[in-house]
Amino acid sequence: MEGNKLTSVDLKHIEIQDSFWGKYINLVDEVILPFQWELINDRVEGAEKSYCIRNFRIAAGKETGEHKGMVFQDTDAAKWLEAVAYSLNKNRNSRLEEAADQTIDLIAEAQCEDGYLNTYYTITGNQRWSNLFEGHELYTAGHMIEAAVAYYQATGKRKFLDVVCKLADYICQVFGPEEGKIHGYPGHPEVELALVKLYRITGNNNYLCLADYFVRTRGERPCYFLNEDCIKNGNYIFPEFKDFDLDYNQSHMPLSEQMTAEGHGVRAVYLYSAMADLAYEYQDEDLLRQCETLWDNIVNKRMYITGSIGSASYGERFTGDYDLPNDTNYSESCATVGLAMFSNRMFHLTRDGKYMDIVEKALYNTLLSGIAMDGKHFFYVNPLEMVPETVKKNPTYRHVKTTRQLWFGVACCPPNIARTLASLGNYIYAVDEHTIYVNLFIQSSIDCQLSGRNVNVRQESNYPESGKVTLFVKPQEEGSEFTLAIRIPTYCKEAVLRINGKEESPQPEKGYVHIRRLWKKEEEVVIELKVPFRYVRSNPRVRHNIGRISLMKGPVVYCLEEADNGDYLSTAVIDTRIEPKEEFDHQLLKGTLCARIKGARIDYGKTGSSLYEAERPVYKEAEFKAVPYSSWNNRGEGEMIVWMREKD
Amino acid sequence: MEGNKLTSVDLKHIEIQDSFWGKYINLVDEVILPFQWELINDRVEGAEKSYCIRNFRIAAGKETGEHKGMVFQDTDAAKWLEAVAYSLNKNRNSRLEEAADQTIDLIAEAQCEDGYLNTYYTITGNQRWSNLFEGHELYTAGHMIEAAVAYYQATGKRKFLDVVCKLADYICQVFGPEEGKIHGYPGHPEVELALVKLYRITGNNNYLCLADYFVRTRGERPCYFLNEDCIKNGNYIFPEFKDFDLDYNQSHMPLSEQMTAEGHGVRAVYLYSAMADLAYEYQDEDLLRQCETLWDNIVNKRMYITGSIGSASYGERFTGDYDLPNDTNYSESCATVGLAMFSNRMFHLTRDGKYMDIVEKALYNTLLSGIAMDGKHFFYVNPLEMVPETVKKNPTYRHVKTTRQLWFGVACCPPNIARTLASLGNYIYAVDEHTIYVNLFIQSSIDCQLSGRNVNVRQESNYPESGKVTLFVKPQEEGSEFTLAIRIPTYCKEAVLRINGKEESPQPEKGYVHIRRLWKKEEEVVIELKVPFRYVRSNPRVRHNIGRISLMKGPVVYCLEEADNGDYLSTAVIDTRIEPKEEFDHQLLKGTLCARIKGARIDYGKTGSSLYEAERPVYKEAEFKAVPYSSWNNRGEGEMIVWMREKD
Repeated sequence: MEGNKLTSVDLKHIEIQDSFWGKYINLVDEVILPFQWELINDRVEGAEKSYCIRNFRIAAGKETGEHKGMVFQDTDAAKWLEAVAYSLNKNRNSRLEEAADQTIDLIAEAQCEDGYLNTYYTITGNQRWSNLFEGHELYTAGHMIEAAVAYYQATGKRKFLDVVCKLADYICQVFGPEEGKIHGYPGHPEVELALVKLYRITGNNNYLCLADYFVRTRGERPCYFLNEDCIKNGNYIFPEFKDFDLDYNQSHMPLSEQMTAEGHGVRAVYLYSAMADLAYEYQDEDLLRQCETLWDNIVNKRMYITGSIGSASYGERFTGDYDLPNDTNYSESCATVGLAMFSNRMFHLTRDGKYMDIVEKALYNTLLSGIAMDGKHFFYVNPLEMVPETVKKNPTYRHVKTTRQLWFGVACCPPNIARTLASLGNYIYAVDEHTIYVNLFIQSSIDCQLSGRNVNVRQESNYPESGKVTLFVKPQEEGSEFTLAIRIPTYCKEAVLRINGKEESPQPEKGYVHIRRLWKKEEEVVIELKVPFRYVRSNPRVRHNIGRISLMKGPVVYCLEEADNGDYLSTAVIDTRIEPKEEFDHQLLKGTLCARIKGARIDYGKTGSSLYEAERPVYKEAEFKAVPYSSWNNRGEGEMIVWMREKD
Repeated sequence: MEGNKLTSVDLKHIEIQDSFWGKYINLVDEVILPFQWELINDRVEGAEKSYCIRNFRIAAGKETGEHKGMVFQDTDAAKWLEAVAYSLNKNRNSRLEEAADQTIDLIAEAQCEDGYLNTYYTITGNQRWSNLFEGHELYTAGHMIEAAVAYYQATGKRKFLDVVCKLADYICQVFGPEEGKIHGYPGHPEVELALVKLYRITGNNNYLCLADYFVRTRGERPCYFLNEDCIKNGNYIFPEFKDFDLDYNQSHMPLSEQMTAEGHGVRAVYLYSAMADLAYEYQDEDLLRQCETLWDNIVNKRMYITGSIGSASYGERFTGDYDLPNDTNYSESCATVGLAMFSNRMFHLTRDGKYMDIVEKALYNTLLSGIAMDGKHFFYVNPLEMVPETVKKNPTYRHVKTTRQLWFGVACCPPNIARTLASLGNYIYAVDEHTIYVNLFIQSSIDCQLSGRNVNVRQESNYPESGKVTLFVKPQEEGSEFTLAIRIPTYCKEAVLRINGKEESPQPEKGYVHIRRLWKKEEEVVIELKVPFRYVRSNPRVRHNIGRISLMKGPVVYCLEEADNGDYLSTAVIDTRIEPKEEFDHQLLKGTLCARIKGARIDYGKTGSSLYEAERPVYKEAEFKAVPYSSWNNRGEGEMIVWMREKD
């Protein structure tokens, strides 16, 4: 790995004004954060109650009552605060900031004298750390830490940071290799990556060491969970957990031996994200290689084309290589967020564009399919094929919802989506001392320091509708030498580069064109990526997709919806020898680029009422309209299909 | 309905000597019953313990200990005894009869003074009838009654019959519409049809009335289960039951309003069987029509081509119309037994051959796929498509086994299969005063009374390998007038009839050719059914089967197995324009009629290690060998597929 890893630029210095992403990003400030504030305060009629703020009030002694909601209910507030922080970076919305400050005050009051912070255990009086497998105390702490770091970075206010430092200091006293400490680790990884963040902002090496301890102890034999925890005691919080194997939470073998992505999807990618962080901090090449192996296994064998993971609902987990059912899958929104986090970290360490391909895929497809265009409804589970009638009547699909829901009892996904949208800038650009990487083609502007000088880069883009991206590079001082690295996605087979109007032949390395030069006062770099609609086929080992194709443009996966094409979408057959036709539908969902594709409908003619007497079918010519998968289900309940039959 | 319904002939008078069925029927006496006797006595190494006989010994005070196994563990013994009884009809195997008598003595000792008989409640001391939803007391009683009736019919010994009459008398005191009695009904239907059997053999009308009460009270509002039972108390035996709706056990609405088959498959068809019985006993045309409606719904919208039912594992239940996934389904062996029972009863009432089509489909396919050809291994769940690697790694399939298992903790299927095989004669023939119906083409001989005279009919058949069936009709006295009715299956589009060598044109009515005449001393009737291999397509509303075909010969469904065709069976494409070629494989599983079919393999060429970069596939010519679905998985673990892709 490179000794100097890439970093993100402070979100304060990035402004996004993109036609595609604008539909969603503006929702964060305008709808999602205010709405989620109401939700965690239980003020939204028709939504499941969160009890989150109420739990803090009880723990703080300002109200009486029992803890309600999940054991990790506190994280609703933490993820909301983290998203608020990212949002405040660009706009110090005083109403939001006041609400956040007030919440932070409450959290501080709910913190115990010794630093412990968790309303479930505080209110119930259950023994702290007695059930690491399920109790989510460290997971919750991790989200608190992430939120506090973000809030400090956005506002400069230390109060929340002080709270989580006190919490982290306490956790450092409780856990670790030393005698007398608990030799366990979290049932749900999350605190590991949070502790690295806290270390990076505070410089306190204890936090880094503890993260490292948690990661390296995981899965060691004898297994902590079997010997000391709920599995031994048989006192389960979640009854279904007693049927889960240790691979559910990646503790089935020492991490250093884990070469395939196993178990619960979110747990896995949060853990791998921390591993990537530690690989850098300790300059540990072995750990980096292991991250690469795990990432390869996910991306080349266990990931949906939409950038989602988790082929099974039971355990919300990875299953086996090439096992990617399109309708019974889990594909949790949060797992996609985690995959983007992990991939972004791997990019920062390796500067290899293949990681950014996956970040882009995850963000453009499953992240957005998780949220409705009204900003108030969310999918947990993101199937690639849906027949609502079946989903409602067949309990094999009981984890699937046929429309996005207002809120969930387990409310991880909505705030996770919100914080990712609010921090999108972290994915668009990355920098080191002398280079700025343009990763995503999202219209925006960034101010950063390159070779010690202030530089502004403005990106004009209407991607992926158009593949033309213009970068206006403005160093504060003429003649600054630095590198502009522009990503050429793997799916883009042809690109034209023009610097100040002069065509150059791009020579991408690891997915990036590097333009190193002395930059004048303002220069214009244009990259024209050829991103036509294209048909994509699966590796034939994915049996569910044999004989099927999907349609993509750039990173965007398309699908057929009942609203455009009627029902029985399984009878649609696409003739991939005919080019898809682009069609911009101004009426559709604030303006959407659609595709008209040709093929046939399988027609069995009159089949009567019998089940097994159909005649040989005929193929009746038909045209279909495809829309981005991310925008599906914004027009009511209906069928949807990503992997369509291909005409022989 | 006809006032005089058809009946079965005493199994003593039917002898079966069929090449296809012989492989299985002979297993009953030689392997299954002795083996199951060892199993219920916990003497088989490597098998899950049954505890069944042990529980009876404890309840009888001959041993001390706790009840082990399921609440309905007693039914292991009951179903074993019932199968033994059918077996003793044709062969008074003294070792089996002694074991049976000994078991019956034990059961009698385990019965309480007041007639109550159930080792679970007796041993645990839990309150009788406190949990009808889950407790299975009436279900268990039903199996005891069925066994006792069969044993009495086979041996003439009254002891077991007396035990169950005492039990039934006691149940009649406890349940019923009168004040002071429990106004509930079984969580698992079964006792209803058993009580009708007991009524028919004893003439005690109380039993019929109680069966009728149970059926007609079911689903009435307010619902008994919500108001008086475990749902109200919240004390569940099976934790998952708390998530089940009332339709799980058909108590979601009054039975008279139920027009679609809902809920747990076995419960449903046992209940409908009792409804058919009651329709006859009370000559209730409305009830008969409702049975027809429910049967139509199953057969035309919710049944697999293999005669199995239950599209979802969760709840082992029906889902919606045309929802027939081939790999995540439940398709329990017991549900198929129940469907055959229900269909046979409907045939007895209506004399319509369409019911016998389904009996035949159920018996030739799923009944037999439930049992290995060694007679010792069983499938509970019968998928129509299996990829073992996926099944093992993806918990969506955790209900599926990749090979048949020695025995199950819930051991309903093995003895249910055994009793059905042992009573196969009940399905082959049916009679009324003047007619004998030849329903199934299984080589056998029957002695019966027709028009008051003894008649022997001998059937020579090698069906469905050959469609030629010869019936030798021998009345005891020349010149007896009666009708020989021979079934022409719906799938048979052409048949030739010859009476004593003279060709006649068959005029089937409701699926039967009726030959009414004065029969001489011995006459020969030949029916030649044309039953070539044929390709079958699903109604296109079955989305999982669109673009797919299956292969059948007569009632027998064929499949591709990995043992013959290699793996990746999803890439097999069948050219249905080419006729399948018959091939009798003498080496295969005691001799098996196979089919050679032609088509192609989808070949994506070199696809590299990536998931989504495959080229347009080519279709490489290929030949496949298909074997009967019933015989699959007798050569080790491997892929299997029933619904194959059809070449355009």
